[in-house]
Amino acid sequence: MTAPQTLDALASFLGQRLSRSKSDLDLHGRSESHFPPMPPDAVAYPDTTEEVQRIVTLCAEARVPVIGWGTGTSLEGHAQAPRGGVCVDFSRMNKVLEIRPADLDVTVQPGVTREQLNRELRATGLMFPVDPGANASLGGMAATRASGTTAVRYGTMRDNVLGLQAVLADGQVVRTGSRARKSSAGYDLTALLVGSEGTLGLMTELTLRLHGIPEAVSAGVCAFASVEDAVNAVIDTVQMGLQVARIELVDAATARIFNGYAGTGFPEQPHLMLEFHGSPESVAQDAARFGEIAADHGAGTFEWSAQEEDRRALWTMRHNAHYAVLASRPGHRALVTDICVPVSRLAEAIGATQADIAQSGLPGPILGHVGDGNFHAILLIDPAKSQDQETAEALSHRMVERALDLGGTATGEHGIGLGKMRYMAREHGPGWEVMGTIKRALDPHDILNPGKLVPQPD
Amino acid sequence: MTAPQTLDALASFLGQRLSRSKSDLDLHGRSESHFPPMPPDAVAYPDTTEEVQRIVTLCAEARVPVIGWGTGTSLEGHAQAPRGGVCVDFSRMNKVLEIRPADLDVTVQPGVTREQLNRELRATGLMFPVDPGANASLGGMAATRASGTTAVRYGTMRDNVLGLQAVLADGQVVRTGSRARKSSAGYDLTALLVGSEGTLGLMTELTLRLHGIPEAVSAGVCAFASVEDAVNAVIDTVQMGLQVARIELVDAATARIFNGYAGTGFPEQPHLMLEFHGSPESVAQDAARFGEIAADHGAGTFEWSAQEEDRRALWTMRHNAHYAVLASRPGHRALVTDICVPVSRLAEAIGATQADIAQSGLPGPILGHVGDGNFHAILLIDPAKSQDQETAEALSHRMVERALDLGGTATGEHGIGLGKMRYMAREHGPGWEVMGTIKRALDPHDILNPGKLVPQPD
Ligand SMILES: Cc1cc2nc3c(=O)[nH]c(=O)nc-3n(C[C@H](O)[C@H](O)[C@H](O)COP(=O)(O)OP(=O)(O)OC[C@H]3O[C@@H](n4cnc5c(N)ncnc54)[C@H](O)[C@@H]3O)c2cc1C
Ligand SMILES: Cc1cc2nc3c(=O)[nH]c(=O)nc-3n(C[C@H](O)[C@H](O)[C@H](O)COP(=O)(O)OP(=O)(O)OC[C@H]3O[C@@H](n4cnc5c(N)ncnc54)[C@H](O)[C@@H]3O)c2cc1C
Repeated sequence: MTAPQTLDALASFLGQRLSRSKSDLDLHGRSESHFPPMPPDAVAYPDTTEEVQRIVTLCAEARVPVIGWGTGTSLEGHAQAPRGGVCVDFSRMNKVLEIRPADLDVTVQPGVTREQLNRELRATGLMFPVDPGANASLGGMAATRASGTTAVRYGTMRDNVLGLQAVLADGQVVRTGSRARKSSAGYDLTALLVGSEGTLGLMTELTLRLHGIPEAVSAGVCAFASVEDAVNAVIDTVQMGLQVARIELVDAATARIFNGYAGTGFPEQPHLMLEFHGSPESVAQDAARFGEIAADHGAGTFEWSAQEEDRRALWTMRHNAHYAVLASRPGHRALVTDICVPVSRLAEAIGATQADIAQSGLPGPILGHVGDGNFHAILLIDPAKSQDQETAEALSHRMVERALDLGGTATGEHGIGLGKMRYMAREHGPGWEVMGTIKRALDPHDILNPGKLVPQPD
Repeated sequence: MTAPQTLDALASFLGQRLSRSKSDLDLHGRSESHFPPMPPDAVAYPDTTEEVQRIVTLCAEARVPVIGWGTGTSLEGHAQAPRGGVCVDFSRMNKVLEIRPADLDVTVQPGVTREQLNRELRATGLMFPVDPGANASLGGMAATRASGTTAVRYGTMRDNVLGLQAVLADGQVVRTGSRARKSSAGYDLTALLVGSEGTLGLMTELTLRLHGIPEAVSAGVCAFASVEDAVNAVIDTVQMGLQVARIELVDAATARIFNGYAGTGFPEQPHLMLEFHGSPESVAQDAARFGEIAADHGAGTFEWSAQEEDRRALWTMRHNAHYAVLASRPGHRALVTDICVPVSRLAEAIGATQADIAQSGLPGPILGHVGDGNFHAILLIDPAKSQDQETAEALSHRMVERALDLGGTATGEHGIGLGKMRYMAREHGPGWEVMGTIKRALDPHDILNPGKLVPQPD
């Protein structure tokens, strides 16, 4: 079958659910970041695993690329189609299939978004804590091994996907994991697929670990004289075994932007924002103990509250950071870079990044999930200035190189996509070739999200 | 090179550290379980990664099997040599290479045992919590994806290996992971190697996550009228988000055996043994809250203590369970089976297992890491009774089948080895073939621990 015949064959069973409209192709060829549009040849909207299987099988026969699509919020051009092909949009596979409160797990279709899942869970007293800010799909989150503010307490998608169902490049459907909490039965195929960015299989079901909605929550914020003081407070907090549910750093530039955006009166200094989950007593104790640690590092008072309104205001602000930063320079675009280093090197990594950004003249506030050593710079590009894009890319490049110099990783949570391919060889050495060997063994014709993640033939 | 020439070539650089003595071969051909001896042709004691690399490269050339060996405590014949070859004993690679308190991690050679590591960590206030009872090597624990009593709080080896160095079948040395706490940079090769039982690579370094030694610990025990009541108390505990550090079930038969072994006066009923880690206030609160949950399920008083002596007595007893059970029937051998099911099905799984054991006439006490849905039966075999071995194997077989029927796994923590190969096809379906594809891609000549884990050519 030729590629056009394949699309016709797909249309014959998907009907209207195979779209070739220009607007649909454009939408699925765009990226949240600075990559030029790379549209697929068609967008499929399957309803079932069997349909996904038929799509993959037909595409494999004609060597047509197949690219998964959740909500398209990934930041490194992950879901773009540099070689065309069929984009498989999972938005119709959006059912919560089974909630099992006694086992603290749930099985969902990949198109369920995290907000939808938490809405459907609410009555059970359970929650799914992984929170990448964007209202991403759970399939996309698993595929990018996403995390966010709560990873320091609840882990990333690596820790919260218990098992999955996937369609592989040869059209086979596999189930990985079991419903048991742990297993020593063979290779960890769940972990292999999580973070594989759609290059090894299309996930059609996920079984996720749930957590009880905590009985009590306290949250608060405090200012530090320097990033170093703030990071040292983080290190002490983690080392003392104080269980934080979130511990976020915003730098002085971000505090200033918050003030402008929301009329708040934060001192223009680095801040830590924290949250504790537990019993009413434990969250009060935890907040008090953190207050002592912060004071040891010269911080002002740690203002905390167990009131829902106060907490919500705090995290709404943190979640809106991206938009607040964009609003601070109307008409600018953002290049967001994400790196992660050992916590002991975090102050150094942030300090050097801040100095580098200051010297460049670009606005570039920094925020981070610092309990994990993970932070982002939001580099603002003025489209009217021809140099800005290049300056931002060079800054981002030096951030990644610095992370690798410090024993860290090119990406803590956003993933590789198109944007970070060039760091894979340095980060993994011969391990990158091993990834390529696995890819070739499981997808010999390079059907699944080609051009991404693994070494490419010259 | 022929196999004998390979051994000579190995001896030429390992000297005395290549052993062909009968006692050494016998020792490395035995198993902790009921498998007949399967000795290797030689035992190598490398000192460095480079030596491991030379061993693998030479063996690969002559297609000589290479089998890793930690302390030989695995229970399913994992480290035996059904096809002969070279056993690589890691006991000399036993250095703690670097402890990094600020990052809560440590890099070790694979031959370091968990007790040794915790001794060397003590001065830092940190600990490595994964505890399979036996004083296993960290390499062996990683290779079997081991866990134990504390997994409910601290996770298994899957969660506690941050990265590793391994020699692959082609003699290449790869490093997986980074020193960052999390990463979205490509396939999770760390997770692929953890649990691969030496069939994909020999691990020569491990970077492990550490945890603070808790400021305070409380532990206690209480009796329940039935296993079902005990398990329902476990479900409520987990669901309420009460953070237990250990939650172990021993059945009535085990309680009776403890009494005989240690002169204790436990009622002959199922018991839960718990431990809480935290601050002095939180561990007291946690113990009190568990007491309420237990009372809701008809339990007697939950006797707990924050005194170290009391705690130590409790866990020494639990850790000695295996030996207490053996001592209860002098001259008997044990067949230990390990399964794991969703917690909601645990009471059913244990109840059916108890009934089955009772009917068989074999002694078979049950203990379990029940917070994870994981339990073991220690089936006692009288060597004088020709039927016992077969009866025990049939019981164990039905336990596994039942676990799979209930959505669980054939092994929660002991692994596959030789003993559980026959369940892989049923547990994983086409996923088992995927494991075989990965194995063939990375070890095309089947050098590394052949005959284990993946589908075998007919
Ligand atoms: C404002 C903003 C803030 C963000 N903050 C964070 C953050 O804090 N932490 C974080 O981790 N990320 C963050 N992100 C990035 C993004 O939200 C995550 O990468 C998210 O996981 C992407 O999910 P998605 O559903 O949008 O996936 P998409 O972008 O649609 O796809 C991502 C990748 O997954 C593949 N894929 C999608 N579905 C499947 C499937 N079912 N099977 C196989 N492959 C599939 C695609 O092919 C693609 O390679 C942020 C993004 C924005 C815009
Ligand atoms: C009394 C008793 C109680 C036990 N309780 C538990 C428990 O509660 N939980 C639990 O999980 N286990 C338990 N076990 C089983 C056992 O302790 C674990 O399986 C342990 O992880 C084995 O470690 P080891 O060093 O003895 O490995 P070995 O038995 O020497 O080897 C195990 C496997 O790992 C491979 N291997 C060893 N080192 C390496 C390396 N460096 N690189 C690659 N492969 C390697 C071997 O080839 C083999 O396949 C128990 C065992 C006993 C005897």
